[in-house]
Amino acid sequence: MSGSSAIWLDGAPVPALPLPDRGLDYGDGLFETLLLCQGRPLYSRFHLERLMQGLQVLAIPDCLASVEQQLEVAAREIGERNWAWTALRLTVVRAPGPRGYAPGDSARARILAIATRLERDCGQMAEAATLTQVTHFLAAQPLLAGIKHLNRLEQVLAANEVKRMGRDEGLMRDSAGRPISLVSGNLFLVRNDQLRTPLLEDCGVQGTRRRLILERWAPALNLDCREEKLSMQDILEADEVLYSNSLLGVRPVASFEQSVWSSHPVCEALFQQFSEELPC
Amino acid sequence: MSGSSAIWLDGAPVPALPLPDRGLDYGDGLFETLLLCQGRPLYSRFHLERLMQGLQVLAIPDCLASVEQQLEVAAREIGERNWAWTALRLTVVRAPGPRGYAPGDSARARILAIATRLERDCGQMAEAATLTQVTHFLAAQPLLAGIKHLNRLEQVLAANEVKRMGRDEGLMRDSAGRPISLVSGNLFLVRNDQLRTPLLEDCGVQGTRRRLILERWAPALNLDCREEKLSMQDILEADEVLYSNSLLGVRPVASFEQSVWSSHPVCEALFQQFSEELPC
Repeated sequence: MSGSSAIWLDGAPVPALPLPDRGLDYGDGLFETLLLCQGRPLYSRFHLERLMQGLQVLAIPDCLASVEQQLEVAAREIGERNWAWTALRLTVVRAPGPRGYAPGDSARARILAIATRLERDCGQMAEAATLTQVTHFLAAQPLLAGIKHLNRLEQVLAANEVKRMGRDEGLMRDSAGRPISLVSGNLFLVRNDQLRTPLLEDCGVQGTRRRLILERWAPALNLDCREEKLSMQDILEADEVLYSNSLLGVRPVASFEQSVWSSHPVCEALFQQFSEELPC
Repeated sequence: MSGSSAIWLDGAPVPALPLPDRGLDYGDGLFETLLLCQGRPLYSRFHLERLMQGLQVLAIPDCLASVEQQLEVAAREIGERNWAWTALRLTVVRAPGPRGYAPGDSARARILAIATRLERDCGQMAEAATLTQVTHFLAAQPLLAGIKHLNRLEQVLAANEVKRMGRDEGLMRDSAGRPISLVSGNLFLVRNDQLRTPLLEDCGVQGTRRRLILERWAPALNLDCREEKLSMQDILEADEVLYSNSLLGVRPVASFEQSVWSSHPVCEALFQQFSEELPC
C-alpha cells in the first residue's frame, strides 16, 4: 500500500484480489466514485441509491449495509491520514461461483474500496475543458442504461481517443448521433437561461451530480432544468456548455468544434451551490 | 491453489491479482477459453488470432509472444498433473495506469491464466440442449463485435435468466429481433442440407469453433455453410439446430418453443470431424 493510496476488500486492507473474480472475468458488478473532503464522503446517499438500483438490475443480493460499513472504515482511515481530497472508488462484484457466465448461489458480494489521494483542490472550480467528438457511438442497451456497471470499454476507448487528440474531454453520442454524455461526466447546455441535459433512456450513466443539479442546485438558482433529447446543433448554439461528475462537481466547457465559450456564469453559480454544501 | 484449479499471472503461480487492475475496473481486456486434452491445447492458433484482433481493436500493445509462452507454462503443468480435460481461461488486461478511464503509457499487458479441471469427457458429444429465449437483446456495437472482450454483463444476465428458467441455453437476439447467438456459443441451423449461422456485424462473438465449422469441418463434409441474417422463423422451421463453443465443440439443440428436434445428423457429423482432430 503506497503513501497516496489504500485498498480494502470486505473491510480489511489488502494488496491483491483473490481469484477467480467475476468483476475481472465479466465486469459482473458496479462501482461508485466518491469524493471525500478531509475524510468526509460527499453525497453518499446519492451514491448508495444509485448503487442499490444497479444491484437490483444485475440481481446481485442487497449488500448496501456492508457497503456503508466499509465506506465508514475507509473514511475513518482517510481522515486519520489527513488527506485533503480523496477519490474513493467502491466496487461491488457478484460473489465468485462456478466457471461460466451463470451466477452461483452465494449471496455474499465482494466489496472493494480503493482510495486515491487527489492533488488538486476540489473546492475550486476546474478550468474550462476543451471538448472533442468521440468517433464511436454508445450502444443502446436500456437494460443497463443509467447504472454504473463495470462494463466500460466504450469509455476506455473514448478516453484513449481524447488523449490522442490532446483534448480534455470527449462528447459521446448515441447511434442516432444525439449527444448523450461526456466520457467522464454528464453534459448540460444553457440556452435562454434554461438548463438542459440529455435523456438517458438507452445509454449513459445517471450521475450523482446530474441528479443534484436537477433536483437541488438548479431549483435553488431558479433555473429551469430538464432532461431532453438534444441535437448536436443544440450544443453548437448553446450559450454555455458544462459537465458534471463526482470529482469535479461541475466544470465549464471552453470549446467544441467551431464553438468557443469564454464566460460560464451558470456553471459558476452551480459550483457555488456545491461549494456552500462542502463540509470542509 | 486447489487440487482442481491453478492460476498464473505473467507466467508465475499466484493466488490473487495485484490491485488496481483495469480488467476489474472497466473490463479493459480480452479473454480466450481453451480446451486442453491431456495438457495439449486445442486450436491455439485460432484463439491467438482472435486475441490478436481484439488487442488491435482495444489498442492494447501486442503481447502475443508472452501469451504463447504462458500458454506453454500452463499446458506443461496441466500435463504433469495428468488432467484429462481442462478449461484454460487466458485473460489479457491492459497494463495498470493512473486513475480514470484513459489508458496509461505502459506497454506491458497483464496475462492471467486460470486452469480448471473438467469433469465431463469432452471427447463425447454432449446431450442435446433445451433452449429458451432471452428477454433482453444484445446491444449493437460494431466497434466491439466479434472480439472476446471482458464486458460480458449481457451474457451474465442472460445466463441468469436461463438458469431461472431451468433450461440449458438461451437464444440471444439483436434489437431487431434477429437471432445472433446463444449465451455461450454460436448458433447454427440446418435447412435443406445447408448450414447457416448468423452474421455478427453488430454484436456477438466470432467463436473459434464457428470459424472451424465455416472453414474446415463443413467443407470436409461437403456441406454448404454460410453466414447470413437469420430470422426467428428460420429457427422454428429448421431441420436441425446446433451450437458451437470451445469446450463442447458442437452440441445439438433438443427444443426451442414449440419446435422439437430428435435427430441431429449434421451435428453428429461435425462432432465426428472434431473427434478425428483430437490429439488424445
